[in-house]
Amino acid sequence: MPTPELLESFPTPADAPFVVEHIAEEFTSVCPVTGHPDFGTVTIRFEPRPRGAGGVCVELKSLKLYLQAFRSEGIYYEAVTNRIRDDLAALMRPTWLLVRTDWRGRGGIRSIVRATHGEVPGAWAQ
Amino acid sequence: MPTPELLESFPTPADAPFVVEHIAEEFTSVCPVTGHPDFGTVTIRFEPRPRGAGGVCVELKSLKLYLQAFRSEGIYYEAVTNRIRDDLAALMRPTWLLVRTDWRGRGGIRSIVRATHGEVPGAWAQ
Amino acid sequence: MPTPELLESFPTPADAPFVVEHIAEEFTSVCPVTGHPDFGTVTIRFEPRPRGAGGVCVELKSLKLYLQAFRSEGIYYEAVTNRIRDDLAALMRPTWLLVRTDWRGRGGIRSIVRATHGEVPGAWAQ
Amino acid sequence: MPTPELLESFPTPADAPFVVEHIAEEFTSVCPVTGHPDFGTVTIRFEPRPRGAGGVCVELKSLKLYLQAFRSEGIYYEAVTNRIRDDLAALMRPTWLLVRTDWRGRGGIRSIVRATHGEVPGAWAQ
Amino acid sequence: MPTPELLESFPTPADAPFVVEHIAEEFTSVCPVTGHPDFGTVTIRFEPRPRGAGGVCVELKSLKLYLQAFRSEGIYYEAVTNRIRDDLAALMRPTWLLVRTDWRGRGGIRSIVRATHGEVPGAWAQ
Amino acid sequence: MPTPELLESFPTPADAPFVVEHIAEEFTSVCPVTGHPDFGTVTIRFEPRPRGAGGVCVELKSLKLYLQAFRSEGIYYEAVTNRIRDDLAALMRPTWLLVRTDWRGRGGIRSIVRATHGEVPGAWAQ
Amino acid sequence: MPTPELLESFPTPADAPFVVEHIAEEFTSVCPVTGHPDFGTVTIRFEPRPRGAGGVCVELKSLKLYLQAFRSEGIYYEAVTNRIRDDLAALMRPTWLLVRTDWRGRGGIRSIVRATHGEVPGAWAQ
Amino acid sequence: MPTPELLESFPTPADAPFVVEHIAEEFTSVCPVTGHPDFGTVTIRFEPRPRGAGGVCVELKSLKLYLQAFRSEGIYYEAVTNRIRDDLAALMRPTWLLVRTDWRGRGGIRSIVRATHGEVPGAWAQ
Amino acid sequence: MPTPELLESFPTPADAPFVVEHIAEEFTSVCPVTGHPDFGTVTIRFEPRPRGAGGVCVELKSLKLYLQAFRSEGIYYEAVTNRIRDDLAALMRPTWLLVRTDWRGRGGIRSIVRATHGEVPGAWAQ
Amino acid sequence: MPTPELLESFPTPADAPFVVEHIAEEFTSVCPVTGHPDFGTVTIRFEPRPRGAGGVCVELKSLKLYLQAFRSEGIYYEAVTNRIRDDLAALMRPTWLLVRTDWRGRGGIRSIVRATHGEVPGAWAQ
Repeated sequence: MPTPELLESFPTPADAPFVVEHIAEEFTSVCPVTGHPDFGTVTIRFEPRPRGAGGVCVELKSLKLYLQAFRSEGIYYEAVTNRIRDDLAALMRPTWLLVRTDWRGRGGIRSIVRATHGEVPGAWAQ
Repeated sequence: MPTPELLESFPTPADAPFVVEHIAEEFTSVCPVTGHPDFGTVTIRFEPRPRGAGGVCVELKSLKLYLQAFRSEGIYYEAVTNRIRDDLAALMRPTWLLVRTDWRGRGGIRSIVRATHGEVPGAWAQ
Repeated sequence: MPTPELLESFPTPADAPFVVEHIAEEFTSVCPVTGHPDFGTVTIRFEPRPRGAGGVCVELKSLKLYLQAFRSEGIYYEAVTNRIRDDLAALMRPTWLLVRTDWRGRGGIRSIVRATHGEVPGAWAQ
Repeated sequence: MPTPELLESFPTPADAPFVVEHIAEEFTSVCPVTGHPDFGTVTIRFEPRPRGAGGVCVELKSLKLYLQAFRSEGIYYEAVTNRIRDDLAALMRPTWLLVRTDWRGRGGIRSIVRATHGEVPGAWAQ
Repeated sequence: MPTPELLESFPTPADAPFVVEHIAEEFTSVCPVTGHPDFGTVTIRFEPRPRGAGGVCVELKSLKLYLQAFRSEGIYYEAVTNRIRDDLAALMRPTWLLVRTDWRGRGGIRSIVRATHGEVPGAWAQ
Repeated sequence: MPTPELLESFPTPADAPFVVEHIAEEFTSVCPVTGHPDFGTVTIRFEPRPRGAGGVCVELKSLKLYLQAFRSEGIYYEAVTNRIRDDLAALMRPTWLLVRTDWRGRGGIRSIVRATHGEVPGAWAQ
Repeated sequence: MPTPELLESFPTPADAPFVVEHIAEEFTSVCPVTGHPDFGTVTIRFEPRPRGAGGVCVELKSLKLYLQAFRSEGIYYEAVTNRIRDDLAALMRPTWLLVRTDWRGRGGIRSIVRATHGEVPGAWAQ
Repeated sequence: MPTPELLESFPTPADAPFVVEHIAEEFTSVCPVTGHPDFGTVTIRFEPRPRGAGGVCVELKSLKLYLQAFRSEGIYYEAVTNRIRDDLAALMRPTWLLVRTDWRGRGGIRSIVRATHGEVPGAWAQ
Repeated sequence: MPTPELLESFPTPADAPFVVEHIAEEFTSVCPVTGHPDFGTVTIRFEPRPRGAGGVCVELKSLKLYLQAFRSEGIYYEAVTNRIRDDLAALMRPTWLLVRTDWRGRGGIRSIVRATHGEVPGAWAQ
Repeated sequence: MPTPELLESFPTPADAPFVVEHIAEEFTSVCPVTGHPDFGTVTIRFEPRPRGAGGVCVELKSLKLYLQAFRSEGIYYEAVTNRIRDDLAALMRPTWLLVRTDWRGRGGIRSIVRATHGEVPGAWAQ
């Protein structure tokens, strides 16, 4: 089960602004209605708070195990996206966070869901 | 016939802002003048109102059946796009909605039509 | 000869804002200096005025015949682009219009020309 | 030698705003240090002043000969880009001008240089 | 070891604004935890201060040797990015600087890190 | 209904060998089990018998109408492919014929079916 | 568990030669050593025996369920490929069968495995 | 009118086997039924006879003018292809010749025609 | 140092013919002349001898460590390729083996080297 | 001037068969008629004779200088290709050699020329 306890963090290495993006292309969960597997890509972008303000980054291996824990979870697209956003926001309390999920689709329709936290930082727009 | 009654919805799972995008690549309707089939892709993007404000999302299977109902409909590109926008806006009363149709074209000209409802949310620009 | 009389229009089907884009990938005219044929793509984007304000859209088949009429015309890239912009602006008096021509090029240089009329609408930026 | 005298111009055909882009994909000059040839693409974008204000456009064949004249020139990436910008700005005195050079690179590093003159016009952003 | 002393500079050739971008697609360092090699692309974009203000550009060959010096360095993604930003900012004191690293990834997750210095200049947005 | 009577032909214009390929990217039929629409591309390649031997080619507009007639037909992938092969072989009695259908797929599996008649001619292998 | 009993078949609709290809892009199993999930694409190509010889084709929905049954199976790349080949060969006793698996890879190495049964038919080479 | 007299040739520069390919991406003719323009790409591949056997190659500028002469010609796809093959075979009497035309298509069907003369040479297969 | 002792193997899981392909996109060694790093992709394809004949496959993790051992090795493109071929042929004594290296290149020239052992099996051509 | 004396070689490192391919994407020469520069890619593939038979490979840096020497040479496409083939065949006396030139083209026609020496080896076909 994908619980927030699976996630670990480390202190950010800088006070100057920077943005991190992790792209997990091998995500799978289960449709709660049909029981068929869903496949997608999860993209996580965030600006950590500065080091001086106690900012932290999510640790990469723990993120992998957290995302793998959705493998047997019956859950909708919209709920996956909001849940990852909420768990990462609670862990890092970042200046900005975006979670985007791209689903391969069913019956000729594919879907994308984006959930955000905080304001887009200048470092992203460049 | 593609009537609004075909569309169903479910309550949005979050109060924080998020954006959903559904891309139906197997859309077909009929040219009202020549009777020949038209083929295209329908993209639907929206930000639901927050859960606390009674926000809803369109249900995916009902959306598929609604879009399939255009199969025998004689209708122009511009009218298809505005009709889907109007039906989905009535169903969800969303914060923002964009309907975009990409048509494979006739006689060397292909076309794209975009119809909108509400202001582009910050979550889309990221 | 590509005269404005070849162009026809029909009333826009909506009062809500929408944007139409037609992409003609089989455009050809003649270089007025060398007499050699030029080949390119013509892209036309516009937001019609609302239905209540008497807005019209260019009719697709008449647009095809109008563009085909440049086939024997000796005319420069810049003049083609401005002429199409002027003829369509006169026909539709749209809220916004952009004409873009992409030319396959000669002697290792390819060219793109953009001519506009009015302000970019919000529906395009989405 | 690439002298400004090689460049010719013609009066712009319109008072309404438009933007021209020329893309020369077969550019070559010589590295002033090693003597080895450099290869790249030169992109030139500009908005001419309006016809009523005496605006002119660079003539395409003269531009080709001007760019070919760099073939035996020993010159750095940054200097090529600024020199083309200066020569074209002097010729056309345009509302806006951007010169971009994309270099195929040496030793695993490829480079891009952009030099500008004036403010980006609205017609480009569309 | 990648020390700032490896980096050299030369005076910028212009007072008018311009932006330089170097893309090193053959970057490799070592994961400090597992000892396995990491592979990525390093992109460096900057606007030098004007020539009259003593502006300088990083010299390309010295940049190559500096980046190659990370080959045996045990260092995290985030630290590589911030370190290159800091070393180049100290060398050039540029108007603007962005360092972006794209990593090929491990265990199904690939990552991108962006670190900035100063405000995005107008010459970049064009 | 897609009956062979919809297909027309014209005499081949040459005695020397040649191969024709028609690619219809807007094909749709109906799944006989679920009633949902199927979408795909139909590719038809053939070498007509020589003109002196009474060879004929399928006429393009009649082919379009024949393929459109599958729009309401409930029929499996394999049967569509074999039926088109049989109808075209009966019409043209060609030296060689290949019918290939590429289906967009359902439930994460997409399919391709190939049916042939006669030996691959040399003109194809080149 | 992916047992052969999950697979169903139907009689081939033709005596003339044809080839079927199914491409399942959402395959996942588990590494028997590390317990981490593996992701890949499974491609199945076959020529059924002729209808008159009792030829059958694998039924598409049963194939989907059979492939989904590998989701919790700890199994190597080579074994997955050979097992699917053996199960389908036993079910269909086809004239030709190829099973190809493309794996997304681990630690910078991605893999492809091909297993065959019978001779490549002429219908494939076209 | 595209007459064979437009074509010129020059002696092949070698006795050893070699293959030449010319790809004209800006071909246009007229549909003899509807009068609408057709657009396509013409590919010409040939192995000239050896120099010692009086082999010749088609001259490139004359080929361009010959192909441009189809601009006002009402002619079918199949006839264009066979006519170019016949005219070039008469001009060069080559060891091998292939003419391939790729047409952008009408009504959702695009077409490719190949006509050949002589046997495929070994130099092509490499 | 990349010694054959780093390589391990396991028994092939089948007697029926199959082909394995490993693609390592993160290979790096050192140029023996200049000392600069080389970067490339190593592709390894082989058909193991049948299980009954004592056939073995190279173990994936040991292959990774073996390839990583070239990181500090000064060695030419041709020698890398032949050495990997020889070491793997000695380890597996396979029915067929191909080693292909794709190098990113220096000074505008990129290179590919292929070395083989045994005859191409039928399973590869499919 | 591109003389054969610019080319150097080194002994092949193996007796087992292997194939080398060098791809020079920055080739330029001059059209002997118009004096305008031509740009293209030169691909060189060869199988050296075995080491025991005195086989040699062309040295990469000398190949670069040899190809750069065409920069001011007025020469036709066909002649460039045959001359490189002849010079490399004389230098290496290889088992097989293919020289392919891809030219960016003039006036809407791009060209490819292939010249060969010896028989295609098995190692290439894999």
